[in-house]
Amino acid sequence: MKVATFIEPGTMAIKETAKPVVEKDTDAIIKIVRACVCGSDLWWFRGISKREPNSTTGHEAIGIVEEVGAAVTAVKPGDFVIVPFTHGCGECAACKAGFDGNCTNREAGANGGYQGEYLRFINAQWALIKIPGKPADYSETILNSFLALADVMATGFHAAKSAEVVEASTVVVIGDGAVGLCGIIGAKLLGATRIIAMSKYEERQKLAREFGATDIIAERGDKGIAKVMELTHNDGADAVLECVGTEMSMDTAAKICRPGAVIGRVGVPQKNEMNTSALFWQNIGLRGGVASVTTYDKEILLDAVLKGEIEPGKVFNKQFNLDDIQAAYEAMDKREAIKSLVIVSQMD
Amino acid sequence: MKVATFIEPGTMAIKETAKPVVEKDTDAIIKIVRACVCGSDLWWFRGISKREPNSTTGHEAIGIVEEVGAAVTAVKPGDFVIVPFTHGCGECAACKAGFDGNCTNREAGANGGYQGEYLRFINAQWALIKIPGKPADYSETILNSFLALADVMATGFHAAKSAEVVEASTVVVIGDGAVGLCGIIGAKLLGATRIIAMSKYEERQKLAREFGATDIIAERGDKGIAKVMELTHNDGADAVLECVGTEMSMDTAAKICRPGAVIGRVGVPQKNEMNTSALFWQNIGLRGGVASVTTYDKEILLDAVLKGEIEPGKVFNKQFNLDDIQAAYEAMDKREAIKSLVIVSQMD
Repeated sequence: MKVATFIEPGTMAIKETAKPVVEKDTDAIIKIVRACVCGSDLWWFRGISKREPNSTTGHEAIGIVEEVGAAVTAVKPGDFVIVPFTHGCGECAACKAGFDGNCTNREAGANGGYQGEYLRFINAQWALIKIPGKPADYSETILNSFLALADVMATGFHAAKSAEVVEASTVVVIGDGAVGLCGIIGAKLLGATRIIAMSKYEERQKLAREFGATDIIAERGDKGIAKVMELTHNDGADAVLECVGTEMSMDTAAKICRPGAVIGRVGVPQKNEMNTSALFWQNIGLRGGVASVTTYDKEILLDAVLKGEIEPGKVFNKQFNLDDIQAAYEAMDKREAIKSLVIVSQMD
Repeated sequence: MKVATFIEPGTMAIKETAKPVVEKDTDAIIKIVRACVCGSDLWWFRGISKREPNSTTGHEAIGIVEEVGAAVTAVKPGDFVIVPFTHGCGECAACKAGFDGNCTNREAGANGGYQGEYLRFINAQWALIKIPGKPADYSETILNSFLALADVMATGFHAAKSAEVVEASTVVVIGDGAVGLCGIIGAKLLGATRIIAMSKYEERQKLAREFGATDIIAERGDKGIAKVMELTHNDGADAVLECVGTEMSMDTAAKICRPGAVIGRVGVPQKNEMNTSALFWQNIGLRGGVASVTTYDKEILLDAVLKGEIEPGKVFNKQFNLDDIQAAYEAMDKREAIKSLVIVSQMD
């Protein structure tokens, strides 16, 4: 079978490898239908972070269950599923508390290779999210939205949940990548009435408005902060979604909160240390981390897509075949794509 | 009138000064009945932090309204009130969001001098909390509990609220000073069923149990962490109340959280910078700061004291007259008192 493989920074390839097999009772083998490239993949594609050469790539997909282990009864061969990047067991303290992104029953190395024809998926009994019917029952738009539920939409929603957005909140979303854009959808789902998107690029500003942003701020740093304070009559925001992870974006987040507001962050932190005393003196909360994909998909997101209430699949504005994986990465690297969709197999 | 005055580290004195007067329409003059010494006062008493020599001291009291400004209608002369250390206006975005400890309508320098016969109190219309009846209607125990509502009980409750303690939570309280002990009361009020108190001193352990602690851990640092993990079957706590503020206590807090748990901190941070990436990867939240005294007292705490549900006044285990203010500070400095009560005027 074919699988996307990291060669060296800037270079991807499609390689032939053996089809995976069920290794544990709790495994499932998934035939991948669609996968995609994540903004976080650019860290190693650009050589900023390290990745093992010849490692398989991708961590978001939708697919068809091909085979299941003996302990897997929740899904069966032929089922159409969202394949999340998380692998919640559904039984540990983290999963039970709704934080399946931090499941304590994980398996090292079992979370790559989604950009390939088949995938071995662990903790399949609880973590996979069954979609009613089969791929051919849905429009392209809805299929793309299902794919967004494997990571990016759940991650944007996690930013909004972590920031404790509630009915009538005034929210600021920092970052206009696919996650930030999905954060806007998440804030709207939770009832925010004012959503200020900090976005510099015209195409993304347009999508931000479509997703529910009521105001756009193109400025960054001190100018952006001043603009938020002006728009909120100097009160600051009730909730801030930090979807970048840089020192500057965290600094901005802290400075635009009203006392008692919460920063919900999902951008991988660029720097370990930060000044949390400044947060203390304003009672500003800091929450966030890895999204609870299965929890959110089952609780709210899949239903919202099926009802047509949300269309996160619109973040995929470029489409590639698996064979063209190099172009899929390059389009994101050059900011030509907000997010690159990868067609892996044709639908039945 | 008499007022306690800071002379130099280790030395307090009672000085004569002019009785304060109403300066603004929103002021009230309070005749102080009882005041007390706060653990945070030890920072400057010990010379660790700076304080202006000859400055008046104290920030917690109960008293009788002596006079009010023209805009104050919520209380009138003769009313018995809790005099919080906070001065919420009740109208700014912070107060409206329930964070009156961060009221944006404050006045510089207007929050000292509670250890004295009379006090000018700003934002009196909203911030003061009226107690039914008069001091002589209540037992010593209940009067002490009213006094605790001026800061320490509200601050302990803030730790529990910030840590997002809910029904059936497993909670760890770090710190067995008066605030930590009140944190136990707060956690219980919010429905925690398991409350693990990290406490080293026997007298405080006893009070912790009385207040609702189900388990006591005397060890600190790595040994204390191991003990918490053992008691929670390696899951970690749902909520951690950090009532110390040192680097070690914050480190402990972060290491005993289950994924997704929240640290509610009220200990003034000893160090500005901390590693928040470690929190990110476990979805651990960090909240807390200055307590919302008026909000909590009006919403829940005064009622709980009046009904006899909570007895935070038990943290006062030593009592002094205002003239003996030096001894009141020394008793806390030497850990002879958990918290020193200061009798300012006799009750009518």
